[in-house]
Amino acid sequence: MTEPSYREMWENLNLDIEAHDGLLEVLGKFYGDIYMSQQGRLQGMEYLDFVLSEVHGLRVKELIDAKNAGRKIIGSFCVFVPEEITLALDAIQVGLCAGADAGTEAAETVVPRNTCALIKSFIGFKMARICPYTESCDLIIGETTCDGKKKAYEAFGEMAPMHVMEVPQRKEADDRVLWKAEVLRFKDKLEKLTGKKVSAAALKKGIKTVNDKRRALQRLNVLRAADPTPISGRDVLLINQISFYDDPVRFTQSINTLCDQIEERIDRNEGIAPAKTPRLMLAGCPMAVPNWKLPYIIESSGAVVVSEESCIGTRNTRDLVDESGETVDEMIDAICDRYMKIDCACFTPNNERMENIKKLAEETKVDGVIHYSLMFCQPYTHEAFKVEKTLTQAQVPMLSIETDYSMEDVEQLKTRVEAFVEMIS
Amino acid sequence: MTEPSYREMWENLNLDIEAHDGLLEVLGKFYGDIYMSQQGRLQGMEYLDFVLSEVHGLRVKELIDAKNAGRKIIGSFCVFVPEEITLALDAIQVGLCAGADAGTEAAETVVPRNTCALIKSFIGFKMARICPYTESCDLIIGETTCDGKKKAYEAFGEMAPMHVMEVPQRKEADDRVLWKAEVLRFKDKLEKLTGKKVSAAALKKGIKTVNDKRRALQRLNVLRAADPTPISGRDVLLINQISFYDDPVRFTQSINTLCDQIEERIDRNEGIAPAKTPRLMLAGCPMAVPNWKLPYIIESSGAVVVSEESCIGTRNTRDLVDESGETVDEMIDAICDRYMKIDCACFTPNNERMENIKKLAEETKVDGVIHYSLMFCQPYTHEAFKVEKTLTQAQVPMLSIETDYSMEDVEQLKTRVEAFVEMIS
Ligand code: SF4
Ligand code: SF4
Ligand code: SF4
Ligand code: SF4
Repeated sequence: MTEPSYREMWENLNLDIEAHDGLLEVLGKFYGDIYMSQQGRLQGMEYLDFVLSEVHGLRVKELIDAKNAGRKIIGSFCVFVPEEITLALDAIQVGLCAGADAGTEAAETVVPRNTCALIKSFIGFKMARICPYTESCDLIIGETTCDGKKKAYEAFGEMAPMHVMEVPQRKEADDRVLWKAEVLRFKDKLEKLTGKKVSAAALKKGIKTVNDKRRALQRLNVLRAADPTPISGRDVLLINQISFYDDPVRFTQSINTLCDQIEERIDRNEGIAPAKTPRLMLAGCPMAVPNWKLPYIIESSGAVVVSEESCIGTRNTRDLVDESGETVDEMIDAICDRYMKIDCACFTPNNERMENIKKLAEETKVDGVIHYSLMFCQPYTHEAFKVEKTLTQAQVPMLSIETDYSMEDVEQLKTRVEAFVEMIS
Repeated sequence: MTEPSYREMWENLNLDIEAHDGLLEVLGKFYGDIYMSQQGRLQGMEYLDFVLSEVHGLRVKELIDAKNAGRKIIGSFCVFVPEEITLALDAIQVGLCAGADAGTEAAETVVPRNTCALIKSFIGFKMARICPYTESCDLIIGETTCDGKKKAYEAFGEMAPMHVMEVPQRKEADDRVLWKAEVLRFKDKLEKLTGKKVSAAALKKGIKTVNDKRRALQRLNVLRAADPTPISGRDVLLINQISFYDDPVRFTQSINTLCDQIEERIDRNEGIAPAKTPRLMLAGCPMAVPNWKLPYIIESSGAVVVSEESCIGTRNTRDLVDESGETVDEMIDAICDRYMKIDCACFTPNNERMENIKKLAEETKVDGVIHYSLMFCQPYTHEAFKVEKTLTQAQVPMLSIETDYSMEDVEQLKTRVEAFVEMIS
């Protein structure tokens, strides 16, 4: 991962080379322990291993090459930023959510200590100059989802070029009006940045590309839920994480290839875990690379994760944009409608999420749900109570976990997860 | 405070009499220590002492009598709920923000532990059945300001009749449209509840009544800032707190009477504290009754509070509604415009707040600012960093404090406040 050929690129991006080397080392070791140690992995995962090993190398080089060819790089922290429009302007969208404790001390000089780890992490990555994605971006899109991000973007905006989209807090007709205005403002902003105009043909293609990616992930989500489950939860999480970095067309192809292999495995009635292994759903806050702590704990506690209700999971892939629109305005409307279906805990009320969780638990035949919230995340820690109520009514056991990116609570989490797995076995 | 004549009323409100007696006892003792012990208080404060001593008695009786006469009681937790409209429908609006640790354990069964004290307090008051105001309400209005409240209202709404207004997160034209729709939805809701229609005459009167209250408090805010300061910061905080409970017309009269006395005191060049006492501004989260902890600590550390930048302070009184409107729609527009000026930390960006703080610091000639945030309050803990930056540029020293309603940190706070006062003396 530290090939000398990338060093110059990283220097040009003004990364702190020493700190960045440290990050890559930790990431590599972590990946080895958590991923490469798995038995019976599908061959198609090699592609993902490669992408991750080159996440700061080859993929960043592609972005730099694209920039040199005049294309723009757009960063985002939330699944509310419509990639369809970005693609329609021949720009590239990358996720910037960060999943490691790094630069936390620096971050705490500009945001409160009681801020969720994800936010402190992306601020810390910026301040420590260790994220080549952040440094490659021509524009970074924030959104007024949770208070933590909304306010952190004010500090972040002093360090990087930002545009903040307002996401409404309810889902009534007036909110849809506000949201459409914000989508159009985003489109204008990107049109100015790229010097291009969104055409109907390009937008249609953008919608198709992103829908295809979602369709591939939907296919994967159906297949993973087979009994016995053919692929580990960690691997599917990794795939979802990589979907925010990789080229969408290439990614879609690779996932479909992997799905073909999964189908063969299912035909052979082969599983990644022994029969009767307790099946769990993870629900809650998104887990950004390399935040693999909880899935690893779960899957080394005798259970397997078979569904993932999060934005780095089904929340991002469940709904497609209607493809029947022909004019730009029709397609923008279809985009607005699709994004207003996102059941983020930032909405009030957010009863769809309860319905969706219940349904997913049923469809993927889970024995229990682990609700995962980042510490200090108001929206998801509040909703954990509601999810628990919903699942109790549906007679699905739930364990509520609140954690951050540190490794200090690993033993304690392991004890709790093991007890839960024991209970539902 | 525990006159037997109120017991029946409290029982009818289904209060937990024993827990409520306990609360009143603590409140009474606390008030004695913090308020009645002050030297040289103005005579006009007797009215406030009386109101507070009867806050669970006479004033609640008035509400019950009003209810029996067919009027409706509307509760609120935020200065975004337009009292003008409530009054235009002959209803009564009361503040329900709570400032004491009570029922916290119960509250933590429905909202996360890492929730700000104000929220846990109002939920706790409800679950412990100790707040006669909450129990008197025909309808309680929430707002989507911070994540904590937004999500807590979902739990609260299962225990009390609620209506949630959406407060936008930016201040652009589209946000004004959403806000107007929400104000009209609030009006509709109250019209249905009261069985009345808002008339132009009644709305005009409502606007006048609330503006008069604000004008009286503006007058007080100018007078209190005289040098030497004629009234303690604690007393002005109390007045601001009572403005959310008392009958607005009576309250306005009393404050104007008090202001007459303050003017006489100023003419005599008399102060509540010795000359050269360091003058401080408090800025940040609202302090609800009986959250007098920090002002008391400050004023027993050799300083005096001469201005208060909070919603139980200048943020609620600075702006008036334009009184020139003649039709209901014109007046609704004037109301919308006025409320959109509120510089709550929930907005992004919220640069007006920085300007307002700088201006208030200048106008009230403070030697320093204490920024006060409730622990886990994302909006204000984030803005504390910005406020500090702003004040540093203006060469005004600032101390940032994060606390809750417990008494555990009193000694530690006292040490920090004393050191700060020492530094600026
Ligand atoms: S959880 Fe909400 S705020 Fe976070 S990425 Fe998903 S939609 Fe955006
Ligand atoms: S985990 Fe929660 S607090 Fe953190 S960014 Fe996501 S929604 Fe916001
Ligand atoms: S601080 Fe903001 S949320 Fe709180 S009462 Fe004031 S305006 Fe409302
Ligand atoms: S103090 Fe902060 S977190 Fe608490 S209710 Fe007010 S704005 Fe919300």
